[in-house]
Amino acid sequence: MKGIPINIKNTYAVGKDDPFRVRTKVSMMINIAIIGFGVVGSATYELTVRNAELIGKRVGDAVKVKRILDIRDFDDHPASGLMTKKLDDIVNDKDISIVVESIGGLKPAFEFTKAVLMSGKSAITSNKELVAVHGQELEEIARQNNVSYLYEASVGGGIPIIRPLKQCLAANEFTEIIGILNGTTNYILTKMRMEGVAFADALKDAQEKGYAELNPSADVEGYDTYRKLSILSWTAFGKFIDAEKIDRKGIGDITAEDIAKAKGDGRVIKLVGRAKLVDGEVRCTIAPEAITVGDPLAIADGVYNAIIVRGNFIGDAMFYGPGAGGEATASAVMSDVIEIARNMVASRKSV
Amino acid sequence: MKGIPINIKNTYAVGKDDPFRVRTKVSMMINIAIIGFGVVGSATYELTVRNAELIGKRVGDAVKVKRILDIRDFDDHPASGLMTKKLDDIVNDKDISIVVESIGGLKPAFEFTKAVLMSGKSAITSNKELVAVHGQELEEIARQNNVSYLYEASVGGGIPIIRPLKQCLAANEFTEIIGILNGTTNYILTKMRMEGVAFADALKDAQEKGYAELNPSADVEGYDTYRKLSILSWTAFGKFIDAEKIDRKGIGDITAEDIAKAKGDGRVIKLVGRAKLVDGEVRCTIAPEAITVGDPLAIADGVYNAIIVRGNFIGDAMFYGPGAGGEATASAVMSDVIEIARNMVASRKSV
Repeated sequence: MKGIPINIKNTYAVGKDDPFRVRTKVSMMINIAIIGFGVVGSATYELTVRNAELIGKRVGDAVKVKRILDIRDFDDHPASGLMTKKLDDIVNDKDISIVVESIGGLKPAFEFTKAVLMSGKSAITSNKELVAVHGQELEEIARQNNVSYLYEASVGGGIPIIRPLKQCLAANEFTEIIGILNGTTNYILTKMRMEGVAFADALKDAQEKGYAELNPSADVEGYDTYRKLSILSWTAFGKFIDAEKIDRKGIGDITAEDIAKAKGDGRVIKLVGRAKLVDGEVRCTIAPEAITVGDPLAIADGVYNAIIVRGNFIGDAMFYGPGAGGEATASAVMSDVIEIARNMVASRKSV
Repeated sequence: MKGIPINIKNTYAVGKDDPFRVRTKVSMMINIAIIGFGVVGSATYELTVRNAELIGKRVGDAVKVKRILDIRDFDDHPASGLMTKKLDDIVNDKDISIVVESIGGLKPAFEFTKAVLMSGKSAITSNKELVAVHGQELEEIARQNNVSYLYEASVGGGIPIIRPLKQCLAANEFTEIIGILNGTTNYILTKMRMEGVAFADALKDAQEKGYAELNPSADVEGYDTYRKLSILSWTAFGKFIDAEKIDRKGIGDITAEDIAKAKGDGRVIKLVGRAKLVDGEVRCTIAPEAITVGDPLAIADGVYNAIIVRGNFIGDAMFYGPGAGGEATASAVMSDVIEIARNMVASRKSV
């Protein structure tokens, strides 16, 4: 388990009925590392263990966590044998080809990610702040090193949205993206609506449950929505959004009366982010909106997110699901791991 | 235009800001053919023309329709120079690597698709009947010929759903799929609800508008929903659904009174298909359900579809959008073309 790659030969009996069936036999292994063993990092490890067999089938090779970096100790954890406190144990390990960064924040995530990419390993992140601030530079470094920098989990938690923009809807000219992208504000607004409580009480509850931070301004004032919208704008339009140029309003002024009045009108109040391409420029607004019940975006309650993508052939498509939570976010992280792992398997075959 | 591949060198000025930017210069071309120039086929041609520049950027090479097969004449159409009535003009053309089949039905689509795959070309289809009946065999033939058989457009019109199951959510063990998959019945039920008309009148209107066939039983009795659900079951669970084993009920008995009563209860009636994996077997029910307004599936009105995917890490994710229409379906067809075209570009580079 510690540094010795285990050879797996023909492990997977793949049935004729399996659409993920691979053409050739399995004879290697894809080793990944996780940096940051918090909610997302530990759920990602858990996913690789619980769904190991099906991921092996679908990739065409076993995908295994070889190292986990965290400054904390996890002596009693089943993965304690994989833990390290030194980044060198990951970047210098030639058997590791994919590194998941789930530290969050800019420091030390930015330096760590650069080191990972420059060591010739692909990096995958759930870190919206890092992608929003340094995504372009990190993609460029990845390109120079012939590896990938993928960030499906940085927006919308488990909801597939980056890959749909880059692949599923890639034939479209994108014109607008509209989304409920912040679980914290949505939890607060949903609680105010369902229980008739004031903003301050709903915020306090969210803080007690760990959904909101002690200083909740990044969520409440719409900065988190801005970051995610900027990542979507980059992916769809090729342009990040300038923070100076957005028209932004948070939910701090929303009263129980506002919510009750909207409810009486058959509406729900949500913090909505909009990014629209107008004459080659991205126009961005973030503000609470009263949405009619029955309209697609209105279904996103609590920590669920919903994202509408508008394209010149698809029209409107919407992606909806859990916008937060370790397990859902790990699903998105692993979709990136699987994409890179499949490309590795394919390139082996073409050698 | 007729059989002579045009060489495009470095045509695309790809900006630094474009996330789809490719690493190497463009120097070839990817030629496709379309079989069946109806609603979907002609919209696919239109898409390749209107979005040619962005598709070229995102693929890393120009993608162009070289041949169109149809038994009808299209003398006044801008693409008339590409038309042929002979399949041989496509299967024997070594410059064509991808063929879109949008004939519909089993005959001659099945034989044509086999011929395409056996000639070493990838095939892409919007034909749900063909995939539901012969999908497994055609995938096998594709595999033997080292090409692809892709069918994103066969379910949910423009909505990305096959690729999300195979890629975006590939880390999950799927447990259930629930969907509103038939635009015709949904149009009828929506019209009954909004205008208070009887089933027969709503059906007649759908027939006049071309949304329902003269013999509407495939839609109204739930067979179309069954086919699409069976394709989703194959993709998610690796098993098609046995038509004998489904619990199926159409919408023919739904009265204006049923709709009005549901409306009074804050509900909408929809034809819902459910496929659930229980002890390794797929249990399938198709029946009208009264769904509470505010529940995710309730948003799908008219020809819109909505599909919920349940997985062991993602929880529930929903995909929503236009379930029919030429342009939306062409978006899905072209997502498959782009996937294969990108793989072709990548494999050229690794040579």
